[in-house]
Amino acid sequence: MRKLNLAIVGATGAVGQEMLKILAQRNFPVGKLHLIASAKSSGRKILWKKQEIVIETYQEGCFDEIDIALFSAGSLLSKKLAPIAADCGCVVIDNSSAFRMKHDVPLIVPEVNAEKLAEHEGIIANPNCSTIQLVAALNPLRQLSRIEKIVVSTYQAVSGSGLDAISELENQSRAVLSGAKVERRVFPHQIAFNAIPHIDLFETSGYTKEEMKMIHETRKIFDDDQIEINPTAVRIPVFNGHSESVYIETAQALSLEEMREAIRKTSYLKLVDEVEADKYPLALMTEFYDEVLVGRLRKDLHNPRATNLWIVANNLRKGAALNAVQIAEKLIELDLL
Amino acid sequence: MRKLNLAIVGATGAVGQEMLKILAQRNFPVGKLHLIASAKSSGRKILWKKQEIVIETYQEGCFDEIDIALFSAGSLLSKKLAPIAADCGCVVIDNSSAFRMKHDVPLIVPEVNAEKLAEHEGIIANPNCSTIQLVAALNPLRQLSRIEKIVVSTYQAVSGSGLDAISELENQSRAVLSGAKVERRVFPHQIAFNAIPHIDLFETSGYTKEEMKMIHETRKIFDDDQIEINPTAVRIPVFNGHSESVYIETAQALSLEEMREAIRKTSYLKLVDEVEADKYPLALMTEFYDEVLVGRLRKDLHNPRATNLWIVANNLRKGAALNAVQIAEKLIELDLL
Repeated sequence: MRKLNLAIVGATGAVGQEMLKILAQRNFPVGKLHLIASAKSSGRKILWKKQEIVIETYQEGCFDEIDIALFSAGSLLSKKLAPIAADCGCVVIDNSSAFRMKHDVPLIVPEVNAEKLAEHEGIIANPNCSTIQLVAALNPLRQLSRIEKIVVSTYQAVSGSGLDAISELENQSRAVLSGAKVERRVFPHQIAFNAIPHIDLFETSGYTKEEMKMIHETRKIFDDDQIEINPTAVRIPVFNGHSESVYIETAQALSLEEMREAIRKTSYLKLVDEVEADKYPLALMTEFYDEVLVGRLRKDLHNPRATNLWIVANNLRKGAALNAVQIAEKLIELDLL
Repeated sequence: MRKLNLAIVGATGAVGQEMLKILAQRNFPVGKLHLIASAKSSGRKILWKKQEIVIETYQEGCFDEIDIALFSAGSLLSKKLAPIAADCGCVVIDNSSAFRMKHDVPLIVPEVNAEKLAEHEGIIANPNCSTIQLVAALNPLRQLSRIEKIVVSTYQAVSGSGLDAISELENQSRAVLSGAKVERRVFPHQIAFNAIPHIDLFETSGYTKEEMKMIHETRKIFDDDQIEINPTAVRIPVFNGHSESVYIETAQALSLEEMREAIRKTSYLKLVDEVEADKYPLALMTEFYDEVLVGRLRKDLHNPRATNLWIVANNLRKGAALNAVQIAEKLIELDLL
């Protein structure tokens, strides 16, 4: 297989680091590998597959000869550099929200809508973590019957806010347990031993951007402008692994048996649903699974067309880095580079 | 005011201790005070309002001359001792689930349905913590328009499972932070840095007893058998303070303004809803408020009859001990002892 030259923009971040791990784990055919980060990391060396790679800052020409650029360094930087990279002829897979809703940018979860990759014009967007696991888990169910409405409350890990957020939860937890003063930099309130119903900025509607992303991105990925989505995004003191409490209404009444069967035979999902043995998805399990975990399936007690699910995934992997690498793999498979 | 003789059964538990604090804080007219607990605490002394009170175990006659017995020692013990206490002529206010759904036992949140107290025959039930804050917050809204449907996902603190559960979260958190082995006794899985969608036992429907309590108790308190309730009860690593993400559908479309106004003028609620200033209810705030905190009010983006709220309360106080003491106060006020 032809080796591909890769650039990772944001290589020292929580998602960038996970991308490096995943490229190695999946034996991605990497030729040259450029690691690009901010000036404060420049010159640092990273060991990757026994190679020492020196971190660079962005400079003109750094995307020359690069086939695929994986971006995970925030919207501002993506807006500035992704078009430059695309103009250099490389395909950008962007993990920020900068391009997700642009009509000429495919927004891809490969298992759900890989066919849209063919429409790319140089930039492909990776959806938000909380969206990816939701659409992945619901995809086999909407093959059974159209999903008309989703009410979802999230239980999101701090790793979604980056490495500083992980340190903040760790430091605050230690402080609380030792009776020391709690310091705060990343989150708007103490996250240790608390639940914060606020992720990203508030819009005038009263919803946060994180919540609006779940609405807009789910509609775009499902190619269904009519699906009604009611989200509440909440940060909880978990290091990694997002959980979601999901209520759906489908056009036809579905039985638990057919839904379980559909999930069971979907390779990218793992049904963890034996409540009598205390088995259901847990954030802590996501360290061990690349699949999206689905459990606690049960029917609403009133509406035969309504069902509840508990959906859990590794937000750094399937919710970000893994999905991006899977997009790259799909581009190779479909010969779209 | 005539002083009343009180017994607290389960006086050394998380709720029992809070009852003692609240009786002192609210200057409840306490005459004799019997503190009853299990054998392992017997003989221990508790300092209450500068009095030393010796903890007793249950023995025959211990409810003689008692006016009100506050029970918080689990369903089994309530089933055994509450009828005995009631036969002795004292009024039992029971915090367990033992009698909540009995037709001859009023299930009371005083601000919502105090009028049902008159029907008591010796035992009055205190609702489950997650129900109390839900019905309290929704009560002024249903005066505006009937609530037809509730979809609720909870973020419940460990204190709801008692003092051992508080220690377990503390010990597990220390273990994780220091890389030590995590030990588990109270919860079915590690609770530190995790989210567990499982509180109380599972029923065959796939719902837990905790979830079914929210359905049955809400219907009984609202005296509305038709209200549709879809609950998901989740334990998160918070020491105290339950949060709830709530979606409601009302019979008529309500505006945010009229709902906010209704909440604002309700004395037992506190509207914390200035998202532009990062103000919304938080579990950590419940240390400072006896009111149920309500915020993040917003309209569903599709259904004008649907609204979201974020409801937070101190589960040991309003969710248990305070509500029980408020029932006692109401009994005095209405001369129902």
